[in-house]
Amino acid sequence: MALKVQKFGGTSVADIERIRNVAQRVARAYDKGDQLVVVLSAMSGMTDKLIALAEEASEIPDKRELDVLLATGEQTTAALLAMMLKSMGYKSKSLLGFQAGIKTDKSAGRARILDIEAKRIKALLDNGHIVVVAGFQGSDTNGDITTLGRGGSDTSAVAIASALKADVCEIYTDVDGVYTTDPRICAKARKINIISYEEMLEMAVLGAKVLQIRSVEFAKKYNVPVHVRSSFSEEEGTMVVNESSDMESVVVSGITCDMNETRITLKKVPDQPGISAKIFSPLAEAEIMVDMIIQNTRSGGETDVTFTVPTVDFKRAKEISEQVGNKIGAKEVLTAEDIAKVSVIGLGMKSHSGVAATMFSALAAENINIRLIATSEIRISCVIKAKYAELAVRVLHTAFGLDNPTQS
Amino acid sequence: MALKVQKFGGTSVADIERIRNVAQRVARAYDKGDQLVVVLSAMSGMTDKLIALAEEASEIPDKRELDVLLATGEQTTAALLAMMLKSMGYKSKSLLGFQAGIKTDKSAGRARILDIEAKRIKALLDNGHIVVVAGFQGSDTNGDITTLGRGGSDTSAVAIASALKADVCEIYTDVDGVYTTDPRICAKARKINIISYEEMLEMAVLGAKVLQIRSVEFAKKYNVPVHVRSSFSEEEGTMVVNESSDMESVVVSGITCDMNETRITLKKVPDQPGISAKIFSPLAEAEIMVDMIIQNTRSGGETDVTFTVPTVDFKRAKEISEQVGNKIGAKEVLTAEDIAKVSVIGLGMKSHSGVAATMFSALAAENINIRLIATSEIRISCVIKAKYAELAVRVLHTAFGLDNPTQS
Repeated sequence: MALKVQKFGGTSVADIERIRNVAQRVARAYDKGDQLVVVLSAMSGMTDKLIALAEEASEIPDKRELDVLLATGEQTTAALLAMMLKSMGYKSKSLLGFQAGIKTDKSAGRARILDIEAKRIKALLDNGHIVVVAGFQGSDTNGDITTLGRGGSDTSAVAIASALKADVCEIYTDVDGVYTTDPRICAKARKINIISYEEMLEMAVLGAKVLQIRSVEFAKKYNVPVHVRSSFSEEEGTMVVNESSDMESVVVSGITCDMNETRITLKKVPDQPGISAKIFSPLAEAEIMVDMIIQNTRSGGETDVTFTVPTVDFKRAKEISEQVGNKIGAKEVLTAEDIAKVSVIGLGMKSHSGVAATMFSALAAENINIRLIATSEIRISCVIKAKYAELAVRVLHTAFGLDNPTQS
Repeated sequence: MALKVQKFGGTSVADIERIRNVAQRVARAYDKGDQLVVVLSAMSGMTDKLIALAEEASEIPDKRELDVLLATGEQTTAALLAMMLKSMGYKSKSLLGFQAGIKTDKSAGRARILDIEAKRIKALLDNGHIVVVAGFQGSDTNGDITTLGRGGSDTSAVAIASALKADVCEIYTDVDGVYTTDPRICAKARKINIISYEEMLEMAVLGAKVLQIRSVEFAKKYNVPVHVRSSFSEEEGTMVVNESSDMESVVVSGITCDMNETRITLKKVPDQPGISAKIFSPLAEAEIMVDMIIQNTRSGGETDVTFTVPTVDFKRAKEISEQVGNKIGAKEVLTAEDIAKVSVIGLGMKSHSGVAATMFSALAAENINIRLIATSEIRISCVIKAKYAELAVRVLHTAFGLDNPTQS
C-alpha cells in the first residue's frame, strides 16, 4: 500500500467528461490499495476567464479580492470530483486550501506556503477517504484566502506530499513526461525516464512548461519524489528525484529553446567602477528580470554591455536603457528581437569536460553564429539568431546522443 | 449615522454593470456617513447553472459537495464588489460565510444559522471598512461549508443585522416593494408602505416572492426592521416591522394568488377514528407538503377528504392517494389540476368581523364558485377554478378598498 498525492492539471479537468476520467483513474488506484490525496487545478481557461472578469470590474483588481475570486476555480473542480467519487460509492471529501491546513504568507497572488497542518487530511485518509484538495490556494494567518501564483497547484501537491511523507507525488498533465527537447521542434526527442531536481529546474526555467519551478524547488528541498505523467495514458512518465551517482553517466539530459527574450546592447560605455549598477538598478526597480549579462572590455577605457530581457518587457527595458545610456555616456543602444536562447542541460557536466566544445563545434558546423554565451554548473546557453533555433536544437540533440534510437 | 445591512439579490448583481450600480449606491450611502455591511447573492442564473453542472457530474449530487460548489456563486460577486469599492477609493473587504462568523448546523443544502460571531465584521466596520459578505453560506462546527437554501441570502442579511443590532436591514430587489397584489394581474395594485412580519409571512408563503420566508421568521424573532426596496431606484419601498396598533386600521393588507397547487379528493371514506392519519402519513413520508385539508361528513358513516398539494408533487401524491384509497375503502379518488388559491391577508381581521362575508359576496357577485375554504387568524383562502383567478384577485382588491386611488 502506497500513500500517493496525485495532481491533475487544468486540461485533465477541462470538462465533466475529463473529470470523470480522473475519477475513474483515482478509483482504480484506490481499489489497488493506495491511500490517495488528489489535488486539482481549475478547468483549463477558467483562471483566465476569472481574471478577465476582475479586469472588467476594476482596472487594477485588488489582489486580496482577486485571490478570493480565483479560488472559486479550484473549489469548483474539487467539489465536482468528490461528488463523482461519492456517487461511484467511494468515501470522499473535498477540502479547500484553508480546510486542508495550507498556511501561507500574506502575499496575495503569489503566496508562499509556510506550513501544512495535515491533521484533517490524515484523519480522512485513516478513515478510508479519498481526499480531494483544491490546489493553488491556502489561507494566511488572518484566515484570508491566498493563491500561490500560476501553476501553484503543482506546489500544493508537492507540499502536501512532503507534509504527509507520501511515497510519491504524481503530476498528471497533458504530456506523458519530460522530453529531451520539444518534440514539436525535434522529432527525435525522447521521453526522459529519470531526471534530477537540478536538471528539472534548469529545464523548467528555460521553457519546458511541465512543472512549476517553485514546486521543483519545494520537491528538492524536502526530497519529494515527483512523477510527471500523462492523465490520458497508463504509461510511466518521468521521475524527478534527487541526484544519484549513476545519473552522471548521461552528460547532457536535455536541450531547451527559449524564443521569448530580447537582446539589448549599450555600446561604448565608459569603463568605470559602478557602471553596471547604474545600468541595472533602474531595470530592477521597474521589476524587469534581466537574464544573461555579458560585458566585453574594448580598448580605450570603453566597454560594451549586453543583456537579455523577457520580450514582454522589451519596450520598457529599451526606454530605460536609452535614458541610462544618455546619462552614462554610452555611444549607442542596439537591440535585437529576433534571437533565441538554446541551452544544453546535464548533471554530467559537473564531471565531464568538453561539453562546451561539442556544443560550439556542432553549431559552427551548421554556420550558426553564437552571439552570447552564459553558463551555470549544469547548463550552457547560447544566444543565436531566431531563424536558426530549430536547426540548432536538432543538431545539438544529435551531437549529444539524445536521438530516439527507434527513429534515428 | 446609521448602521445598515444592505442585501442585493441576483438580478441586482447579474453582471458587471449591475454590480457597478450596486457599488455606486453603496458608496453614496457610505459618503452620507452610514456604516455598511453589504450582503450579496450570486449573479442571477448562476446557482441554476452550478446545479446543472453538478447534475452532469452525478445523478444525485452529494449535498456536502453541492454546497461547496454553490458557495462559489456568492464568493464571485462578493470579491467583485469589494474589488470595485477598493478601486473607487473605499476601504472594503469581502468575507465568505466562514470568515464572517456565520455558524450553521450541519444540514447541507438547507442549513440553519445557529449563531453569528460578528467580531471580524465589527472590527472592520470600526476601522471604516465597507464589509461585503457572501450571502447564502456559512460553516458548520467541522468547518465545512454549508448553504442556507433558496433565497438564503435574505436570511444571511437579517441574521447579520440582528447580530450587529443594525438600525435596518435593507433588501434590494428587482421590485420596489411589497404590493397589495401582483401588479401583473391587477393594474390597481399599490405598494404597501408598512406591513407586519405576520402579514409578510402569509404573503411570502402564498407566493409573493419578495422575501424568503425564513428571513421573515428570523426578522420577527429578533425584531429586525426590514426595508424591501428596488436596487434600480431611490424610492422608499416597504417596511416590514413589528405589529403596531395603527396597522390594524387596515383590515386587509393584500391579496395573493397561488396557481401551483392541485386538489385531490378521496370520496366516501369510512368515517372512522384514525382515518386521517392513514391518509396523510404516507404523504408525509414521501415529503409531500399538504397545504389545505377539508373533511366533509356525509350521511351514512362516510366522509369526503379533500386536500391540496404542490403541483410538482401531484403525480406522486396521486399514486399514494390511490393506494391509500384502496386500502381504506374509499369509493373514488378525484383530482383537479386547474385550480387557484386566492387569499386575503390582514392583521385587521383579528379585530374586524365580516371579512369572510365580504370575500364570499364579492366572489359570488361574479358567479365564482368556491371549492375549498381555509382560514388562519390573519388570512382567508378560497380555492376556485384557475380560469377565474385573475378576475377574483381584481374583484377582491376593489372589494377591500385596496385599489390605487390615482388609477381607480
